[in-house]
Amino acid sequence: MQPPRDLRGLWLLLLSLFLLLFEVARAGRPVVSCPAACLCASNILSCSKQQLPNVPHSLPSYTAHLDLSHNNLSRLRAEWTPTRLTHLHSLLLSHNHLSFISSEAFSPVPNLRYLDLSSNQLRTLDEFLFSELQVLEVLLLYNNHIMAVDRCAFDDMTQLQKLYLSQNQISRFPLELVKEGAKLPKLTLLDLSSNKLKNLPLPDLQKLPAWIKNGLYLHNNPLHCDCELYQLFSHWQYRQLSSVMDFQEDLYCMSSKKLHNVFNLSFLNCSEYRERAWEAHLGDSLTIKCDTKQQGMTKVWVTPSNERVLDEVANSTVTVSKDGSLHFHRVQIEHGGVYTCYAMGEAFNETLSVELKVYNFTLHGHHDTLNTAYTTLVGCILSVVLVLIYLYLTPCRCWCRGVEKPSSHQADSLSSSMLSTTPNHDPMAGGDKDDGFDRRVAFLEPAGPAQGQNGKLKPGNTLPVPEATGKGQRRMSDPESVSSVFSDTPIVV
Amino acid sequence: MQPPRDLRGLWLLLLSLFLLLFEVARAGRPVVSCPAACLCASNILSCSKQQLPNVPHSLPSYTAHLDLSHNNLSRLRAEWTPTRLTHLHSLLLSHNHLSFISSEAFSPVPNLRYLDLSSNQLRTLDEFLFSELQVLEVLLLYNNHIMAVDRCAFDDMTQLQKLYLSQNQISRFPLELVKEGAKLPKLTLLDLSSNKLKNLPLPDLQKLPAWIKNGLYLHNNPLHCDCELYQLFSHWQYRQLSSVMDFQEDLYCMSSKKLHNVFNLSFLNCSEYRERAWEAHLGDSLTIKCDTKQQGMTKVWVTPSNERVLDEVANSTVTVSKDGSLHFHRVQIEHGGVYTCYAMGEAFNETLSVELKVYNFTLHGHHDTLNTAYTTLVGCILSVVLVLIYLYLTPCRCWCRGVEKPSSHQADSLSSSMLSTTPNHDPMAGGDKDDGFDRRVAFLEPAGPAQGQNGKLKPGNTLPVPEATGKGQRRMSDPESVSSVFSDTPIVV
Repeated sequence: MQPPRDLRGLWLLLLSLFLLLFEVARAGRPVVSCPAACLCASNILSCSKQQLPNVPHSLPSYTAHLDLSHNNLSRLRAEWTPTRLTHLHSLLLSHNHLSFISSEAFSPVPNLRYLDLSSNQLRTLDEFLFSELQVLEVLLLYNNHIMAVDRCAFDDMTQLQKLYLSQNQISRFPLELVKEGAKLPKLTLLDLSSNKLKNLPLPDLQKLPAWIKNGLYLHNNPLHCDCELYQLFSHWQYRQLSSVMDFQEDLYCMSSKKLHNVFNLSFLNCSEYRERAWEAHLGDSLTIKCDTKQQGMTKVWVTPSNERVLDEVANSTVTVSKDGSLHFHRVQIEHGGVYTCYAMGEAFNETLSVELKVYNFTLHGHHDTLNTAYTTLVGCILSVVLVLIYLYLTPCRCWCRGVEKPSSHQADSLSSSMLSTTPNHDPMAGGDKDDGFDRRVAFLEPAGPAQGQNGKLKPGNTLPVPEATGKGQRRMSDPESVSSVFSDTPIVV
Repeated sequence: MQPPRDLRGLWLLLLSLFLLLFEVARAGRPVVSCPAACLCASNILSCSKQQLPNVPHSLPSYTAHLDLSHNNLSRLRAEWTPTRLTHLHSLLLSHNHLSFISSEAFSPVPNLRYLDLSSNQLRTLDEFLFSELQVLEVLLLYNNHIMAVDRCAFDDMTQLQKLYLSQNQISRFPLELVKEGAKLPKLTLLDLSSNKLKNLPLPDLQKLPAWIKNGLYLHNNPLHCDCELYQLFSHWQYRQLSSVMDFQEDLYCMSSKKLHNVFNLSFLNCSEYRERAWEAHLGDSLTIKCDTKQQGMTKVWVTPSNERVLDEVANSTVTVSKDGSLHFHRVQIEHGGVYTCYAMGEAFNETLSVELKVYNFTLHGHHDTLNTAYTTLVGCILSVVLVLIYLYLTPCRCWCRGVEKPSSHQADSLSSSMLSTTPNHDPMAGGDKDDGFDRRVAFLEPAGPAQGQNGKLKPGNTLPVPEATGKGQRRMSDPESVSSVFSDTPIVV
């Protein structure tokens, strides 16, 4: 009778388990209460300064703000939270001892908007480390030991607006983060201050729009002193960009192992920075950007004669395009002057003045006439004219001498490489080139080995060449000589 | 010679001072570097856990994020920062010993969006304490000792979205904060959990839109147990509102000094919660809101026959208004059924079903016929008819008696206040009112003091009144009696 009793017990156990599961399912969601180490206020979990060596194991799924700062966390593994925290938008992990973060650590928190990893011991940022955080807006990584930023570390973070990498050991400027049309299209603040940057991609930085440069912090780096660097920061100073204005005293560069303030490089004798005017020629098409310090401002352009430029007017030569740029369809001389862009933003307004200089001639015409085909043709015609002059207008004494001594020096006879002297397909014409001096055009019997046009040997030179006067022979041309139009030698048609 | 030398020195001093001021002005802004106790990363100042008894004195004007948590601050005076911090958007003062905050403390930080005052020792929130913070979005006040919230403490905070008042000693529900069209129009989260709330304004709470109720946390309060409370939270549970679903186990109420879970009030025998249908009568105008858990969702309504309700169609009896409500211009019997609202939001989508019952009769008609003018008119006509019946169809014996004894009981004579019996401007008619019994309409000679109409005395009653038959007199009316249309007495025309 024992086995049936055991089975009955098993059935009862299964039934109670089933009922328990049913109860849990009925409740809709498993109830996870506030962890012991934390202070909970509805969707906020504050577990800071609790000397926690690990993240509390079971966190409520509704958590929106999780503060784990000032603890003893050293590793953030992939399984740090067993439940997905889809409501979590702020995760604070600053002031811990984090030296390792799993590449899958942020998979359970896909809706994170604010991540604070500052004041930890991170050394590297692996590729795709933050790729899961596609809606992250602010990432704090300052005061770590980061030496290398992988080029793909911040891939897919299309919403990132602020990235703090200050107080690390970074020596390469991560240009891929700020280049226009780059990985982080919304980035308005990149803090690279207090790192180990020596060289900057200065021309690339100068090209960046003002709203990126305004938040590009580069102070307290051992930059290499040169006039280009001075010109860059002088321009930023002229534009009153925050990244320079707020840290003028901390913008250093290094020369001969000494630190110098970037704006005090008198020993380099750099020329003073001056804002240059835009230059255009008559009929040019030109677009002038209203390069504001903030994105998404409403822009209004005013002409030198204090008239507002309208957005879209038919037959107007000056319009404002959708992105707020001033567009000249065909620049005219009266377009010259100082244009003003008034930009209205949420935080502040901005006024920008741009000078336009118009030159009183077209540039497009010159470009057209100076192309390669024209210059080659002109060169050819000039050569032909010169050759003809040479042939027909040489002093009379040469002709006389040639008539007086028709074949006096056979060794001096030549067939100039400048002239095709053979009759149609007659390879026999030619002569020695030994004597370069006192060279004159004369057609003599071959004396040395048979030579073709331009001094090249022609095989099968068997036909005898009749002695003839120069004039009649010269009129005849060789197809090969015609093909030398594109060689260095002038041609005779 | 001494005075001139002194003057020269003074001039030099003034000149050097002027040059110094000029230098400062030229630099644009005074340079304030990072305070010693803080870690600075461009516009972030992190001064947490430094045992600071006071806020560092000179803070850079560009500071955007200031972390002063885990320190020993006890008072936040008006002059805590000598410079205005117009860029500051986050101020963290949690885990201090703050027991006093000056009413002017937030004047220098008008652009604050996030203020953390949690885990301090605040006891009261004075009126207009936060009124300067007109763009504040999140205010953390949990884990303090707040007993009273002044009704004006949160005035002018038009941008406030989240207010955490959890873990305090609050005993009055601050209804003024959530009422529609109230002080905080953008508030979507109000955490009042773990306080001392006993009574809630239940009818007002039930009327709130779902997007407020969804973020109205009331768990862990010693609420008074009753069926109305049970019905309220059952409705919230039916709607799957976060404030109830995330804290079902923590929603308590108190009865006979015992804590009970709100959903387990079997001892009260409350009726089960059932979602009620909307009811309407033929021809009614009706608006049904799509009461979503989130603000600003895109809403689409579908009819019981699975057709989409269009926004604005001429001649259509059912439309969707701009705020996403379903509007019936004239309810018809075929409008009855279950309507579904599909709402699409940023965070999630929602589907709401609403049943509409249409009664097969109009309600408006009754309302129209029962208005005051009609009832007054009907009352008047009825009175006239009754009087006429009384006058003409009374039993014959009265007439006989009246003729037999024309003036038998002078003491019983009267002029009824119900009838105007005097001829034009004749004040003499009237009589004593001593005898209220067996009162009949009869016109007799005055026996007592001269009385006017309705028993009022009229001066100068000198003219003798001829005795007349009742009938002729009755046909005549007095202007004063005509004016009694609006008095309580019926009139005789």
